[in-house]
Amino acid sequence: MWTFDAPPLEYWKARYGFAPDQAWLDHVRLASVRLPICSSSFVSSEGLVMTNHHCGRECITTVSPPDTSYQRTGFVARTLAEEKKCPGLYVDQLQSTEDVTSRVRGKGTASATAGQVAQREAAIQEIENQCQQQTGDVCQVVTLYQGGRYSLYRYKRFSDVRLVMAPEEGISFFGGDPDNFTYPRYDLDLTLLRVYENGAPKKTEHFFKWSATGAKEGDLVFVIGNPGSTGRLLTLAQMEYLRDVTYPAQLAQVKRNIAIYQELVGQGDEARRRWENQLFYAQNSFKAISGYQAGLLDSAIMVKKRKFEDDFRARVNRDPKLRARYGDAWNRIALALKEQRTLAVKSRFYGFGASQLLSMAGVLVRLPEESALPDSARLPAYRGDGLEKARQVVQAPVPIDKEVEKATLAAQLTAARKELPAADPYLNAVLQGRSPEVAAEALIEKTTLADPAARKALLDGGAQAVRASDDPLVVVARKIAPLSRAVAMRNQRLESTASANAERIGQALYAAYGTSLPPDATFTLRISDGEVQGYPMNGTKASYKTTFYGLYARSADFDDQPPFQLPGRWKAARDRLDLTTPMDFVTTNDIIGGNSGSPVINQNAEVVGLIFDGNIESLPNRFIFTDEVARSVAVHSRGITEALRKVYDAGRVADELEGSARVSQQ
Amino acid sequence: MWTFDAPPLEYWKARYGFAPDQAWLDHVRLASVRLPICSSSFVSSEGLVMTNHHCGRECITTVSPPDTSYQRTGFVARTLAEEKKCPGLYVDQLQSTEDVTSRVRGKGTASATAGQVAQREAAIQEIENQCQQQTGDVCQVVTLYQGGRYSLYRYKRFSDVRLVMAPEEGISFFGGDPDNFTYPRYDLDLTLLRVYENGAPKKTEHFFKWSATGAKEGDLVFVIGNPGSTGRLLTLAQMEYLRDVTYPAQLAQVKRNIAIYQELVGQGDEARRRWENQLFYAQNSFKAISGYQAGLLDSAIMVKKRKFEDDFRARVNRDPKLRARYGDAWNRIALALKEQRTLAVKSRFYGFGASQLLSMAGVLVRLPEESALPDSARLPAYRGDGLEKARQVVQAPVPIDKEVEKATLAAQLTAARKELPAADPYLNAVLQGRSPEVAAEALIEKTTLADPAARKALLDGGAQAVRASDDPLVVVARKIAPLSRAVAMRNQRLESTASANAERIGQALYAAYGTSLPPDATFTLRISDGEVQGYPMNGTKASYKTTFYGLYARSADFDDQPPFQLPGRWKAARDRLDLTTPMDFVTTNDIIGGNSGSPVINQNAEVVGLIFDGNIESLPNRFIFTDEVARSVAVHSRGITEALRKVYDAGRVADELEGSARVSQQ
Repeated sequence: MWTFDAPPLEYWKARYGFAPDQAWLDHVRLASVRLPICSSSFVSSEGLVMTNHHCGRECITTVSPPDTSYQRTGFVARTLAEEKKCPGLYVDQLQSTEDVTSRVRGKGTASATAGQVAQREAAIQEIENQCQQQTGDVCQVVTLYQGGRYSLYRYKRFSDVRLVMAPEEGISFFGGDPDNFTYPRYDLDLTLLRVYENGAPKKTEHFFKWSATGAKEGDLVFVIGNPGSTGRLLTLAQMEYLRDVTYPAQLAQVKRNIAIYQELVGQGDEARRRWENQLFYAQNSFKAISGYQAGLLDSAIMVKKRKFEDDFRARVNRDPKLRARYGDAWNRIALALKEQRTLAVKSRFYGFGASQLLSMAGVLVRLPEESALPDSARLPAYRGDGLEKARQVVQAPVPIDKEVEKATLAAQLTAARKELPAADPYLNAVLQGRSPEVAAEALIEKTTLADPAARKALLDGGAQAVRASDDPLVVVARKIAPLSRAVAMRNQRLESTASANAERIGQALYAAYGTSLPPDATFTLRISDGEVQGYPMNGTKASYKTTFYGLYARSADFDDQPPFQLPGRWKAARDRLDLTTPMDFVTTNDIIGGNSGSPVINQNAEVVGLIFDGNIESLPNRFIFTDEVARSVAVHSRGITEALRKVYDAGRVADELEGSARVSQQ
Repeated sequence: MWTFDAPPLEYWKARYGFAPDQAWLDHVRLASVRLPICSSSFVSSEGLVMTNHHCGRECITTVSPPDTSYQRTGFVARTLAEEKKCPGLYVDQLQSTEDVTSRVRGKGTASATAGQVAQREAAIQEIENQCQQQTGDVCQVVTLYQGGRYSLYRYKRFSDVRLVMAPEEGISFFGGDPDNFTYPRYDLDLTLLRVYENGAPKKTEHFFKWSATGAKEGDLVFVIGNPGSTGRLLTLAQMEYLRDVTYPAQLAQVKRNIAIYQELVGQGDEARRRWENQLFYAQNSFKAISGYQAGLLDSAIMVKKRKFEDDFRARVNRDPKLRARYGDAWNRIALALKEQRTLAVKSRFYGFGASQLLSMAGVLVRLPEESALPDSARLPAYRGDGLEKARQVVQAPVPIDKEVEKATLAAQLTAARKELPAADPYLNAVLQGRSPEVAAEALIEKTTLADPAARKALLDGGAQAVRASDDPLVVVARKIAPLSRAVAMRNQRLESTASANAERIGQALYAAYGTSLPPDATFTLRISDGEVQGYPMNGTKASYKTTFYGLYARSADFDDQPPFQLPGRWKAARDRLDLTTPMDFVTTNDIIGGNSGSPVINQNAEVVGLIFDGNIESLPNRFIFTDEVARSVAVHSRGITEALRKVYDAGRVADELEGSARVSQQ
């Protein structure tokens, strides 16, 4: 995940015999554009933009006519005039980057007193404003290496983006949740947009041409996009904390939610429609967290990490200056985490997260208390505009389902009772000798807080009204609040220590390795090198590619039932398609969430594919990059044009991609 | 893997609501027939027998005309007259079983002095002879529960077996070594034979009819066949020994061989033809051993095993009689293995296995020494007719490839040098201060033993000639022999202790659980219950079935390259086939090597499939049966008839299977 201001040219030359010049680098940077939460690229001289279907989801839904869902039916603009403007959507094209570390840091070494943090934020704001005023562009100071370096990114923004083509969700997300994060895969996860300027397709010389052959095994390929977030600078102690404390607790929590949503979804069609998205997201995060956790449980990966950390610390310790400045950072983090471990069970349960209504009771109890304190002494969530936000939250007329509230609260209390000691004050306060189910039933049944007016009355009544209230949830919240506050404040101190020292480690990394190690992902433009390559899987081999044959096979394996049901267009097109056409493929490139929609290009800067996922084995890459079996998953360029021509009757678009037609001649 | 004399009828009734009567059990027993190393079954009233392609391999090769390989081209008899007799092939049909434990054991409790072992073998021989004389059938005493029980199995043998149909190896073993032991799978691993009596197709009422629908998800199914060998009565200590000592050493050894064969295979077409089978078998055993080892490394499996052993030992210890008789057996095994661990590295390398020529030198050195001893004092391999066999081995004119000899010897010596201490006498004797490569080069280059005449001269010259020889390999063998003998004799004593106590554990098992636990596999007829069921795989779901679509997909994934190349017939037939036809499927039935060719039947005793493999997750079932993700893999009955009709133009056979035609009317 290299930045464009420090591409590893020598490494590429040695490894692949490929040494792109500055013009190549500038061209691929300018051909790549960022969507609000995804990556994308120009793929024609007239502003056509390629990204994933799941990146275009909001636009696709918004532009659907009242009686139609383009998510379900797909959408193809037959002419330029039929292309539909996506309200609010824009793309950002990276113009320049500039090291502003010294301007941000001033002259002192970084540490993390509140005053210094505020100073730094002010400096960043000033740099961004100045840039914006001078250029009219979008300017953003990016924190690299956890604060080891700061860089000013300047973007040209294009705000007229229109929908050109989107397939059905049934094919763009074929295989649904089961196949998500896996390979072999059969998704056409594609959306085509077009950038307009002054009401006409934007002309550009910086776009990726379409490769005549597409990706082939062994090809050197690059992915250009905006990876969102990685944790590769985490120390071993931090990874162990995730492995032993954070992830097990998160997995247990998500599992409880999945059980609740599954029960809800089973209660009939209406319940299913209301809760199936929540169920999907819960299952999805269970899979993702399990994958990260698998990496941390893999001793080979941890050994690799330890080896890196040993080397890094040895480099720091060899240089007296670095040693004095950064040498103790690892131990400081480890000590803070050691103390956090002792608080972990309490931090997990003390608080108001067990139900939506309990959480509102908590805010009502806390608001008068926190308002009375000076800003810096408040709980973090109540600092700055936090007070006002909290007031809005309790007043908002959100729908409350009391049965779901009871189930959630009972599940959380059951878990708390298993992990906390019997005489724990939190348990006493909530359960009062009752079973979790009985307590949850009584508290939720009798509270009046489901009524926004009741909440408003308590909010307006302030400290006195809260003290006087005999609403059972408020009574409970009054007892929990001081317990929870004590734990939260201790945690907060420990987390500040950890993040201040993480910043020191980031500075040390840059001091010890320079740009030879790229910074963690920051949802800014990166270029990643790799190869098209199959891998050993499940006792046998996964091929580097899948084909349309495989799509029909996977559907037939499951008797064409959802999520393996083929859209009607695909059933009808079967005999027209060359079923041996590659559909998806895998590469060893380093990507992560945010790279969705990134182009995969060859040495000639031609599109050979479109990134949309990683395989299950790639999830541990969050912490350390490996390419034995971890792979990025992409739509194959030949699958795209074959589908456009033979399934979607969208020869207009296929011709434009392949460069044989210009839209302006239509 | 239940025996037919103790089917778990109550368990089946409670679990599946299915209670077959004795007639059903007799019918399915008689419809199942055993091949020399496989399982099979009657599938028509006129003697048609269904088994796997790899079970018919020898016949298919033997009956091929001089200029044709039916392995490569496939074979279909268009008429009865074209069916080809398989020389030497027979099938055995189980007629009866009879408990003969008391006759084998006499009146004493079992222990393992050499005298008692001989007595028992004599008793078994007598029982078999008597049965054979009285009935004219094939009789075999089977050792169940490691000696906990003995049973007389009587078979009717049919020795006129003819080849009816065999597909190409390219489709019966599609996916080759990579896909072997895995699922999803796309093999038509089928051979059809026919049993003749008096020159005409054998008439039988005991055959499996063909199911109209074939296997469907959730179906209750039975597999009837002859599982070869399991290790489910192994103690925890024995499993740990396999995990820590045996398998790691075997894997290292096989890996060394794979490296050597890979290098050889890469040396050109002739070398490839000569060595590719060895490479295949080495890769195959690497995969199998890795799978067993994975089970032993899986803590969930070991916990399950420990739980069982705890329960078993508690049952034994609760009963004073059982406790006195068997209570110490586990510890005795553990003690023996503890001592074996200390010998393990020496036993692995001391000896003559490092090359074929060294092994011949070893036999030449040992023969005069062992001949001079009384039989019971000899090394096990030289007892009884072992002497004569050893003499034949050194005289046989086998081809020797000196380059391969050097590579094998050098690899083994390199490994030995890594694991043995520097001053080890074996290393000193062989290396004499040289590097493994230099030593191997010198020893193999200069020895005369590659010449059978040289070996014959040493053999005839006896002790004196061996002592006088200055052949470098003989010199080395003279030095190694006493080292090796000491370790081998100690090992031999420890192994006898282990196997005598294993027998006691088998008896204890039968005493504690009766027939509620089936005995370990013994390549005799068993019936196994299970369900047709997909499973969670690789982050997603494996469907219970694959289809012909998947076959064409897997081939296209690898650009129709071997081992994923489709036979010409299959390419030509594509448009005639219904590509959604199920090809293979998986079930939770308990099987193991020897079950190859077993029918999968439904409750109506109709064929729904044909067992041919297990998935990679099923390999640990060798030690303990689990069905979370372990699956048996079978050819689907609908895939068989669709292929017979539309690929092989073998409607004659498909009609016979489906019961719509009788061959005698042809």
